Amino acid sequence: MKSVGIVAEYNPFHNGHLYHLSQSKEVSKSEVAIVVMSGNFLQRGEPAIVSKWARTKMALLAGADIVIELPYTFAVQKAETFALGSVYLLDALKCSSICFGSESGSIDPFLHTMELLKEQEDQYNQKIKSYIKEGVSYPKALSLAFSDLEKNKDSVDLSMPNNILGYHYISAADKLNSSMQFFTIKRNTAEHNDQTIHDDRIASATSIRKLIREEGNLNRMRPYVPESTFAEMNVYYNTYGHLHDWEDYWPYLQYRLITMGEEELNQMYDIEEGLPYRLQKAAQTAENFQSFMELIKTKRYTWTRLQRICTHALTNTSKADIKSAGETPGYIRLLGMSANGREYLNKVKKDLFLPLVSTVSSFPQDLLALDRKAALVYSQVLKEPARSRLLSMEYAQPPIMAD
Amino acid sequence: MKSVGIVAEYNPFHNGHLYHLSQSKEVSKSEVAIVVMSGNFLQRGEPAIVSKWARTKMALLAGADIVIELPYTFAVQKAETFALGSVYLLDALKCSSICFGSESGSIDPFLHTMELLKEQEDQYNQKIKSYIKEGVSYPKALSLAFSDLEKNKDSVDLSMPNNILGYHYISAADKLNSSMQFFTIKRNTAEHNDQTIHDDRIASATSIRKLIREEGNLNRMRPYVPESTFAEMNVYYNTYGHLHDWEDYWPYLQYRLITMGEEELNQMYDIEEGLPYRLQKAAQTAENFQSFMELIKTKRYTWTRLQRICTHALTNTSKADIKSAGETPGYIRLLGMSANGREYLNKVKKDLFLPLVSTVSSFPQDLLALDRKAALVYSQVLKEPARSRLLSMEYAQPPIMAD
Repeated sequence: MKSVGIVAEYNPFHNGHLYHLSQSKEVSKSEVAIVVMSGNFLQRGEPAIVSKWARTKMALLAGADIVIELPYTFAVQKAETFALGSVYLLDALKCSSICFGSESGSIDPFLHTMELLKEQEDQYNQKIKSYIKEGVSYPKALSLAFSDLEKNKDSVDLSMPNNILGYHYISAADKLNSSMQFFTIKRNTAEHNDQTIHDDRIASATSIRKLIREEGNLNRMRPYVPESTFAEMNVYYNTYGHLHDWEDYWPYLQYRLITMGEEELNQMYDIEEGLPYRLQKAAQTAENFQSFMELIKTKRYTWTRLQRICTHALTNTSKADIKSAGETPGYIRLLGMSANGREYLNKVKKDLFLPLVSTVSSFPQDLLALDRKAALVYSQVLKEPARSRLLSMEYAQPPIMAD
Repeated sequence: MKSVGIVAEYNPFHNGHLYHLSQSKEVSKSEVAIVVMSGNFLQRGEPAIVSKWARTKMALLAGADIVIELPYTFAVQKAETFALGSVYLLDALKCSSICFGSESGSIDPFLHTMELLKEQEDQYNQKIKSYIKEGVSYPKALSLAFSDLEKNKDSVDLSMPNNILGYHYISAADKLNSSMQFFTIKRNTAEHNDQTIHDDRIASATSIRKLIREEGNLNRMRPYVPESTFAEMNVYYNTYGHLHDWEDYWPYLQYRLITMGEEELNQMYDIEEGLPYRLQKAAQTAENFQSFMELIKTKRYTWTRLQRICTHALTNTSKADIKSAGETPGYIRLLGMSANGREYLNKVKKDLFLPLVSTVSSFPQDLLALDRKAALVYSQVLKEPARSRLLSMEYAQPPIMAD
């Protein structure tokens, strides 16, 4: 059985994702689509609008065959680490290929870009360093350094978020000596985090969340998502009484920042010298998350990096925690599967070199400690009994089955 | 000017406190009553129903001349430490005497008790140890050990909360070689934390808070408090929209316990081996503070000690924090004064060996770090702009003046 891997967050699953999912199977000629998906907290350092379980169901109902969780340690990370964790897990699950969305839809420029960066690695790294010294953010430095390099072949524009991710998938596979094949499909929305809507059926996840926030209900998202997503979003809202947003977590982040010592905050993952004082001072006066972010924002740190730092402070994830979690994932956490997916797993199971975790209760708890903590924190904004109900899924929910 | 010291929490100030305040001045023949009062968190490990500023105003309006804050480090403590901090501050402020409430109203049995315990110190300590080994709580062990001692003179019943505090005041003064005189006034309510009301004008602070909670408004407390207290309680409620209760802080304590590592929790003040696991397990399932407390309660720990431990975890107060704060208070934080109190302070000011803190902004910040953190956490349950408003008092409020 040929399988194609997809890296996703599905926050929430929409028509653009549906198109990508079906196209991925088609261009890669695969029977099985394996999705590696961020859990409750996402790459841009924010809580998912609904839990990983609800998002898994959306994916399965729309044609995904296997959904596995990208562990917290790799999900709430810069593109390079996020991509490495994702590609590693898809490779571990014996994926034949990976298919990602890009601006152009052709794979050669990505391969050329990787070759180019390998050839000119030293100049590239030096340029990055000197741009960072000038005080710009890391992604901005990457983009500027790249545009300075000499190019004799088609390469991709590394200032576009989806191109960056695509490049890192290919680069990760190269580092991991993976033989997975790569495909890319031209995205049919403008930008990853575009807030405006250009099409009557297609809108980015960001603009869909914005619609929901602005309207205070789910109805206006309907044209842009499969009916199954619309139904699942309603089930979630009716069951838990809530859709998750950073603002809900703000009182906890604020509480955390005002009670931590500077030394303690310095130990949090991705925090650099000088930032603790800035965060703690802003936390005392800010009235909500948005105003807090505006208070702490500088040229040196991107908004998403600051959000990731806030997420790590919120979940009390330290530099030592991330270090001890290792450089590659140590388990494959299965969130859901179709009948087809189950058949595939039965075939590859005996050859897996990573443990396949179906329910966490039967698995060494310390390996999953960071994901469990993320689930605890994620549930904390729900009122009882919703909190306990969502939380119990973390311990007891077997993989969701869809046929 | 002769002055009498009073140790209090005024949570809230009621007719029993009024009686004690006027009687204290009378029996000690003092013109000035100096109150040392717990700040936002109290000896029994709970948040005060209204802020220290509101409670200071109640005290001044009812006849107190000077109100100073017992620092967090001494307030949220077992009776012995609470008493030591309080007596030390009153002594530092040149009090001529201390007057406390007791069950019997006569001072000699307290003095006899102290002599008795000094004479039989070794047996007493050995008995305490052996009772603790049997698994009872520390206060229970003290009480049992004391009842085992041979007594040839009148002594006090050390199982009554007010007697315990009175005994520790006298004992602290003895340890500190203070020359303050001691007076005691017979309490006219049954017990410190009695929840029932026996008199149509007198009720304990505990039963008054219970009335407020049950009724959801302030009207039923009115017979049991001076009009000035009733007015101040209404002002507080109208200004901040809230009266404080442990349940408000529960989501933060729960969040804190579920995100802390066991090692981190072990570093919190007053936490002993074995307790972290118990607290963290209960925090995951408990739906509110009351049910959490019932889950963690054992014979070994009193309810109030567990509440204190919870308060320290909530405010992130570690063993190291308390140790570095020192064995006696390092400053006198002035919360309020009458014209009379100001005159007194002007007279004694030049002889004080401790710094007198009027507004915190002009004082070394690290000395006040724990009190500031307590103020930050205390305000955290208020909605903006009430949170910022209360918090700004911590930094900018000069001592409250009442004439």
